[in-house]
Amino acid sequence: MARVSQEHLDARRRQILDGAALCFARNGFHATSMQDVLKEVDLSAGAVYRYFRGKDELIRAIVTEVLDDVRSAFEAAGRQVPPPPPYELIGTVMTEVLRERPGLRVDGTSYFPRLVVQVWTETLRNEELAAVIRDGFDQVRAVWIAIVQGYQAAGMMRPDVDPEAVARTMISAAQGFLTQQALFGEVPVETLQIGLRGLMGMSEVS
Amino acid sequence: MARVSQEHLDARRRQILDGAALCFARNGFHATSMQDVLKEVDLSAGAVYRYFRGKDELIRAIVTEVLDDVRSAFEAAGRQVPPPPPYELIGTVMTEVLRERPGLRVDGTSYFPRLVVQVWTETLRNEELAAVIRDGFDQVRAVWIAIVQGYQAAGMMRPDVDPEAVARTMISAAQGFLTQQALFGEVPVETLQIGLRGLMGMSEVS
Repeated sequence: MARVSQEHLDARRRQILDGAALCFARNGFHATSMQDVLKEVDLSAGAVYRYFRGKDELIRAIVTEVLDDVRSAFEAAGRQVPPPPPYELIGTVMTEVLRERPGLRVDGTSYFPRLVVQVWTETLRNEELAAVIRDGFDQVRAVWIAIVQGYQAAGMMRPDVDPEAVARTMISAAQGFLTQQALFGEVPVETLQIGLRGLMGMSEVS
Repeated sequence: MARVSQEHLDARRRQILDGAALCFARNGFHATSMQDVLKEVDLSAGAVYRYFRGKDELIRAIVTEVLDDVRSAFEAAGRQVPPPPPYELIGTVMTEVLRERPGLRVDGTSYFPRLVVQVWTETLRNEELAAVIRDGFDQVRAVWIAIVQGYQAAGMMRPDVDPEAVARTMISAAQGFLTQQALFGEVPVETLQIGLRGLMGMSEVS
């Protein structure tokens, strides 16, 4: 039997993950069958099942990877002391997340935002997945809380503001921006940055 | 034949819309059949079809109503001169939207956020609905652009900030907050308000 290199195995695994993610992004997890995935990646059932035992395992692998991508991007961006201001930090992370995974691009458009929206919906009906997502959200939130504490330590934000509330708000902005990308097509990440920076520069009274 | 009052007709229509919205919020538009809706509202097919010709008409009515609710809430809140600061305005709208539609509450929890996430997903596969949503989004965005211009006219925001970018960012924050509510359960609206206010008070350099 021919020996297969680790590199080949990894590439094949990547190919399956990307193809499946594209199917899920287009039609949702519920309406996508393993047959659809096999057709998309143009591999035999035997070849695919060597890597993933079925649709559930594939879903878990894709969702875990998405969460890891987002968390590690925020972690890396927040490692500076003091952390870059929110508009800069979110801009860096969003650009990176949308650029990653070339297999998720179709005609130059990233299907990552659609995949994220599909994951949210699947979460509403899949308790196992809901637990994975909740865990991933908690981790991203913890990273953001540390970033906000970094702002406060550097005197960029008042020390009496609840870091948890700011963390949730920053994640909201990123989630909502992804939603708009998924529903209404690509918008430059710069738009979100200009908006956040405009908000930061606001004064409360006229 | 007995005459039926307009009030009765309206109440019956409301009952069907709320029951269907609850089904869609729980299981999505795709997986919900008219049979599920009939069971939920406990009415005969004849009674329901008198109001809505089918699932598509029901979906359109529900989505249109959601968009109208959100738009009119922002419109009302933004009518003040100068407009209230973003954290106050979003807080007012979010509280109102979550409190509305008592028929969408189950065990004290609003299913409105879940319904919104399901609508987004359905939009990805339903072109007719996508057009309705795009139109609704454009209207909400126009309301927000006017609000931002109100901030600028009152000297609360620099005049060179692109109102469109701020509008998209504010809508992102609201969308993302609804997403978190749908996925991880209710969080006080105050959390988002504290976060936005904290962001407004930030300085860019330490």
